[in-house]
Amino acid sequence: MRLETTTYLVDKFSAVRNQTLALIEPLEPEDFIIQASPDVSPPKWHIAHTTWFFERMILQEYDDQYTVFHPKYNYLFNSYYNSIGPYQPRHQRGVLSRPTVEEILAYRMHVDKAILSLLQQKRETPVQQKLEQLIEMGLQHEQQHQELILMDVKYNFFVNPLLPAYQNKTESERTLGVDGSPTFKRFEGGLVEIGHDGQGFAFDNENPVHKTWLNPFELASRPVTNREFLAFVEAGGYEQSEHWLSDGFHIVNQQSWKAPLYWMKNEQGEWSVFTLNGIKPLHLDEPVCHVSFYEADAYSRWCGKRLPTEAEWEYVGRQVEQRGNLMGEGSYHPRPVSSDLQEMTGMFGDVWEWTASAYAPYPGSRPLEGALGEYNAKFMCNQMVLRGGACVTPDDHIRETYRNFFPPDKRWQFSGFRLAGDL
Amino acid sequence: MRLETTTYLVDKFSAVRNQTLALIEPLEPEDFIIQASPDVSPPKWHIAHTTWFFERMILQEYDDQYTVFHPKYNYLFNSYYNSIGPYQPRHQRGVLSRPTVEEILAYRMHVDKAILSLLQQKRETPVQQKLEQLIEMGLQHEQQHQELILMDVKYNFFVNPLLPAYQNKTESERTLGVDGSPTFKRFEGGLVEIGHDGQGFAFDNENPVHKTWLNPFELASRPVTNREFLAFVEAGGYEQSEHWLSDGFHIVNQQSWKAPLYWMKNEQGEWSVFTLNGIKPLHLDEPVCHVSFYEADAYSRWCGKRLPTEAEWEYVGRQVEQRGNLMGEGSYHPRPVSSDLQEMTGMFGDVWEWTASAYAPYPGSRPLEGALGEYNAKFMCNQMVLRGGACVTPDDHIRETYRNFFPPDKRWQFSGFRLAGDL
Amino acid sequence: MRLETTTYLVDKFSAVRNQTLALIEPLEPEDFIIQASPDVSPPKWHIAHTTWFFERMILQEYDDQYTVFHPKYNYLFNSYYNSIGPYQPRHQRGVLSRPTVEEILAYRMHVDKAILSLLQQKRETPVQQKLEQLIEMGLQHEQQHQELILMDVKYNFFVNPLLPAYQNKTESERTLGVDGSPTFKRFEGGLVEIGHDGQGFAFDNENPVHKTWLNPFELASRPVTNREFLAFVEAGGYEQSEHWLSDGFHIVNQQSWKAPLYWMKNEQGEWSVFTLNGIKPLHLDEPVCHVSFYEADAYSRWCGKRLPTEAEWEYVGRQVEQRGNLMGEGSYHPRPVSSDLQEMTGMFGDVWEWTASAYAPYPGSRPLEGALGEYNAKFMCNQMVLRGGACVTPDDHIRETYRNFFPPDKRWQFSGFRLAGDL
Amino acid sequence: MRLETTTYLVDKFSAVRNQTLALIEPLEPEDFIIQASPDVSPPKWHIAHTTWFFERMILQEYDDQYTVFHPKYNYLFNSYYNSIGPYQPRHQRGVLSRPTVEEILAYRMHVDKAILSLLQQKRETPVQQKLEQLIEMGLQHEQQHQELILMDVKYNFFVNPLLPAYQNKTESERTLGVDGSPTFKRFEGGLVEIGHDGQGFAFDNENPVHKTWLNPFELASRPVTNREFLAFVEAGGYEQSEHWLSDGFHIVNQQSWKAPLYWMKNEQGEWSVFTLNGIKPLHLDEPVCHVSFYEADAYSRWCGKRLPTEAEWEYVGRQVEQRGNLMGEGSYHPRPVSSDLQEMTGMFGDVWEWTASAYAPYPGSRPLEGALGEYNAKFMCNQMVLRGGACVTPDDHIRETYRNFFPPDKRWQFSGFRLAGDL
Repeated sequence: MRLETTTYLVDKFSAVRNQTLALIEPLEPEDFIIQASPDVSPPKWHIAHTTWFFERMILQEYDDQYTVFHPKYNYLFNSYYNSIGPYQPRHQRGVLSRPTVEEILAYRMHVDKAILSLLQQKRETPVQQKLEQLIEMGLQHEQQHQELILMDVKYNFFVNPLLPAYQNKTESERTLGVDGSPTFKRFEGGLVEIGHDGQGFAFDNENPVHKTWLNPFELASRPVTNREFLAFVEAGGYEQSEHWLSDGFHIVNQQSWKAPLYWMKNEQGEWSVFTLNGIKPLHLDEPVCHVSFYEADAYSRWCGKRLPTEAEWEYVGRQVEQRGNLMGEGSYHPRPVSSDLQEMTGMFGDVWEWTASAYAPYPGSRPLEGALGEYNAKFMCNQMVLRGGACVTPDDHIRETYRNFFPPDKRWQFSGFRLAGDL
Repeated sequence: MRLETTTYLVDKFSAVRNQTLALIEPLEPEDFIIQASPDVSPPKWHIAHTTWFFERMILQEYDDQYTVFHPKYNYLFNSYYNSIGPYQPRHQRGVLSRPTVEEILAYRMHVDKAILSLLQQKRETPVQQKLEQLIEMGLQHEQQHQELILMDVKYNFFVNPLLPAYQNKTESERTLGVDGSPTFKRFEGGLVEIGHDGQGFAFDNENPVHKTWLNPFELASRPVTNREFLAFVEAGGYEQSEHWLSDGFHIVNQQSWKAPLYWMKNEQGEWSVFTLNGIKPLHLDEPVCHVSFYEADAYSRWCGKRLPTEAEWEYVGRQVEQRGNLMGEGSYHPRPVSSDLQEMTGMFGDVWEWTASAYAPYPGSRPLEGALGEYNAKFMCNQMVLRGGACVTPDDHIRETYRNFFPPDKRWQFSGFRLAGDL
Repeated sequence: MRLETTTYLVDKFSAVRNQTLALIEPLEPEDFIIQASPDVSPPKWHIAHTTWFFERMILQEYDDQYTVFHPKYNYLFNSYYNSIGPYQPRHQRGVLSRPTVEEILAYRMHVDKAILSLLQQKRETPVQQKLEQLIEMGLQHEQQHQELILMDVKYNFFVNPLLPAYQNKTESERTLGVDGSPTFKRFEGGLVEIGHDGQGFAFDNENPVHKTWLNPFELASRPVTNREFLAFVEAGGYEQSEHWLSDGFHIVNQQSWKAPLYWMKNEQGEWSVFTLNGIKPLHLDEPVCHVSFYEADAYSRWCGKRLPTEAEWEYVGRQVEQRGNLMGEGSYHPRPVSSDLQEMTGMFGDVWEWTASAYAPYPGSRPLEGALGEYNAKFMCNQMVLRGGACVTPDDHIRETYRNFFPPDKRWQFSGFRLAGDL
Repeated sequence: MRLETTTYLVDKFSAVRNQTLALIEPLEPEDFIIQASPDVSPPKWHIAHTTWFFERMILQEYDDQYTVFHPKYNYLFNSYYNSIGPYQPRHQRGVLSRPTVEEILAYRMHVDKAILSLLQQKRETPVQQKLEQLIEMGLQHEQQHQELILMDVKYNFFVNPLLPAYQNKTESERTLGVDGSPTFKRFEGGLVEIGHDGQGFAFDNENPVHKTWLNPFELASRPVTNREFLAFVEAGGYEQSEHWLSDGFHIVNQQSWKAPLYWMKNEQGEWSVFTLNGIKPLHLDEPVCHVSFYEADAYSRWCGKRLPTEAEWEYVGRQVEQRGNLMGEGSYHPRPVSSDLQEMTGMFGDVWEWTASAYAPYPGSRPLEGALGEYNAKFMCNQMVLRGGACVTPDDHIRETYRNFFPPDKRWQFSGFRLAGDL
């Protein structure tokens, strides 16, 4: 059993770490340095920080022989762990040309070698288990940063007037022709259980399993599409205060939002959209993507519906197969929704789905011990929960219990939504 | 029945409107103009806005004969109702010397007379009922502004180096000698109901009654005191990131918070506190007041507890008599807590109690129709719920279902908290 | 001689102090509190600060018997004298409702009485002379604040949507019908002397007399009028970067300047202007007023001219009689310019005239000793010199050597300009 | 004559363009992208912008055959020429990873080839002269950016906690042992002439020669040294408001200035300084460098002196040989001053010397025609003049009439000062 776990982890470690390298393959050295807004990080920082995570959380704790690669990296690549010490301010990650990309790749190799060597050593089972849990944690962490690399590169490239393309995977034309309204499936609700049961990996914010009461509700069988959201845009939805939360309407005006992030309208009134595959005409049957919680909420109110709570979402999500358009597809863009509208579709992959739920601790939850207790718990305020993963989420990184979270005004993540209603 | 209601309303109208005038009695004309931060409003604005509410929501809708007092007041004294039209920006309320206080008092008399006259007219029952509901709403609204006047005057006076006193009600010395920890009462929870049942007045955010599941929990029999909070301050709690939400620790540092708002430490290390009755030595047995959600949350984590959810609070609040140190006491300051710690005490009055719950719509809730739909619903984001009223809340304005709400970093409201825990 | 001076000073002291009271006569108590931007001060602050100046600079230094009126006023009403101690931050002058206006008027009477009593005492001549110089200084200082009161009230009233009028002095219609270009008078220049010679009062920034070289130049016989400036506005001057200094064009865009401050255009395209006498149609023959240095400079470049240097201005100003539309006229608004264009007109009064000169110390100049050394010298950076006084300048407060100064983007002072050119 | 000029220009063109390439030799690709503050530009931008200058100002105007290298570069690499069209905002130069450095180097080669080819063509003499003037202008412009590259790289590296060194030219130890005060040389002044006479290249801001009057003055024979400035630091000069201009003391407090930029004090109280050659102990005999105008002015007042005007400086500078520690030395750091204090030393090279003069047009000056009129004239406000060049100024790029200028609070340029006084 232990051997199997170790083999599994050795394989997964190599696979995940290589996947990160595959994602940065299309980048020029210059691309690694850019931080076009305080929300994003330079790709170089991501590949260094994920490496630092293994060095600091594992090698420095479990490997007596390990020599720190560089004494300043603990400052440069600590993200936000106050219990570990001070760190480069987040908004200043983009002013660091050194260490070079080459030096960071050497750092990765140094740490990879040490981790793989550590995994081969014999030690007592409890220690080994703890170690393996931490490596699993480090890999899950790295997978989150894989998604961030794609999000951040997309944003960095968008602010450049040259609008460079990250890749050029021309998608097969799958225009599946969805028109008409979505089907709403009805659910009785009642006293249900949500949350993670501790079998397999989960983040501490998914625990524990707990009861919650659901009134009868309905949930759309698919996410809202560009076609539908465009109708809101063209009906003047962004100018009509009555659909919006007060904070939302304030930011709409302050930042002159007229449409989702990455939408562009030319002088002929034609819409196109910036993607990791370059500029494309707006595909009307794709799930709308890169909307803030405020936009999702306003659209829902405009059409007399609401967003689902995360409990409603998870309750339905447990009844659905966990597959979809995830990172493995390689297009890094939502796919047009199927015309088969009878079943719940697209709950996993394509777009993260905003819920009506503020990000808060589950009843009886406990953060991890030590520095990793800062991983999730300290962000449980002023953020909203998203569910289901997106086209940039690693395939084995999503679960029905997975809780993603962003402030309600952010839109550089691959976020959309599906409608719900009371019965 | 109808007559009784009308008589009740005529009496209540006079009582509430006169109470506002009583509250501004101690103010000089100059005091009516100050807006020491964008969060507060000048007292003159409060007395004009509450009058505008009756004029615009009732007289202009129900009184054909009514002549608007001044054509610009709709712009000047609309607070945030976008559906009614543009308005003076909130942070610019303090740049208006005109209309003078005298002119605003004339405006009040003009509107009062028209409302009382309107109430005497005969009309069909459904219209009369709707009208009476609106007048009740206008009075509840005015009561909220009565509390705001006291909050805002306190803040305005505090930023003045002269530290003027609003009144000088010397309290009888009630040092009831609370030491030791609070008693925690245990509750089984289960599937419970909270929310307002529609009998009597409630705001739309309190509806409807709905089921919710509570895990077994404990709740402190009294709020956290100055003595207890001072221990946190003196143990360095404001410098230790591990107790704080990330956003909270950011603001602690950005604004150099060292203690609750209005606490002052002299060179001998003695603490005093600014109150509406002037500067007083810090009374250790009073509930701590003027803390933000972040401070309440950090203190709770520091001592291994947590804040109650609003459902837990209301579940217990329903079992407790609704009386306490409210506006009627006239001291406008929390009272020392009783030494009788076996029963739940102080749930109503003294200090608003922060809960762990983000302000969100109840399942199945519906905002009011028309402009009044903007009253509550559009603020349901980035705010936390507080419960139970404070020493500045009108006595007949509080209920076990009442949901107050503020952003988590605000502290000029009379806010404290009580501890809860899982069982 | 001494007696005469004393009598003169007693009379002037009463006259100047009373003139301040006359200026605040039209104000309501509420008007005394407003600070609509960090640049302006509440009228209450002005009447307190000018009083503090006498108390702190004279009574506390020369009157052993004098008792300070209130221990906190030194903090509240010190403007910017670091050598005297800390002070209420400038942008926070508008958050102080207390002391009330009544208390400040009592403060004035207390100090006036003490000053007049001090002036009657016998003392040695050198001390008496020093004292008299300081009182003269205090009165000149107060006259500067008289002008500021009018500037600041005008601005405070303008940001109020009610647009109240300070007074209602309807002017006799003096439409003197100036059309056509201004006459330019030619001056040979050469090695000239400017600066104050020490005879009579002058501020330290006007000393000493010093040589400077002037190339031959021309100077317009009158200031630029509204008619002329309107042509610039309507020709799109505010949108054309080529006329503007870089910093100027930046602020034009940032603050959306379209015309001088206080100009308003209605939907029919008619221009009116806000004045201390209420809103008036734009009088085309009045000197343009309330323009920044940037606007004056841009207009000059637009028509192929330039602003005069302060040396050029003073050289001509010495040849002209020092009278004009000053505070004594009581209209507090520029008058239409005369049609008699052969002589230099309007150099004194009407509008302060921007010069091309940065505010800098004269060769060999020395600031006053002690705290009063902070009066002028520390502001000699990032400001431009204006000359000649305006319709809000006390009649006996202006001289050909007088140097007023403001940052180049400010426009709430009564500022216009006249054109110059090279020969 | 024409042929000689052409040959001279072909040689100079190659020399200057190659010198830019030599300066970027030590940089990694990542270093080209950083913009650590809005004041600095990424090195990539400098090498692209100087190339764009030749393409836009010369090739697009004079070469019918020329094909623009990339249609977007006119937007990306226009610095501030509004008459040419919109441009990438200055503070956003650091968010552009593309075009890559390699692409920009290809752009340079493309433009270089076209310019050299253009220079070989025959054309009429007036056109050829105009063309040659523009190429000279482009080269002078490029030399200014060479200095900027060094200034900006120094700043970018300093904000990196790794504090990388740009190069490692260990200087020979020239500790020339200056102690004691500087000698002050006395000058009679009188009616003198300054400004450029049109012989050889000069920027339009140096014209024309014009008379000015100088009172008798004294000027220090050398710049203020680190030793002297350290005495000011250690005497508490940065905490004493009486030495400072008001705006200066404001920024000292706002930005917590304690010493010149790049000075660092370790826990033992020892001072070191960050240089383009890495961190060095503070050499007490070097001219103080990287001080703002405010610091230079405050130091001068502290020791009873003043800064020279630019006319005084130029009057003396004309009597001194134009050589010194300029870019050709290759150390890019000021040298210790000579102990020979009888003659004026260090007026050229080492550090730019702040003067007391605001940057303003000379009497009778005319900006260049067309877009190049924006080169200098539109910045003539809110800036102070510096004279004499620094250790990063190309040797053939400095003149006694050369006017450099920066806002008074900037310190990333190599700026020091020398003392002057009245006689």
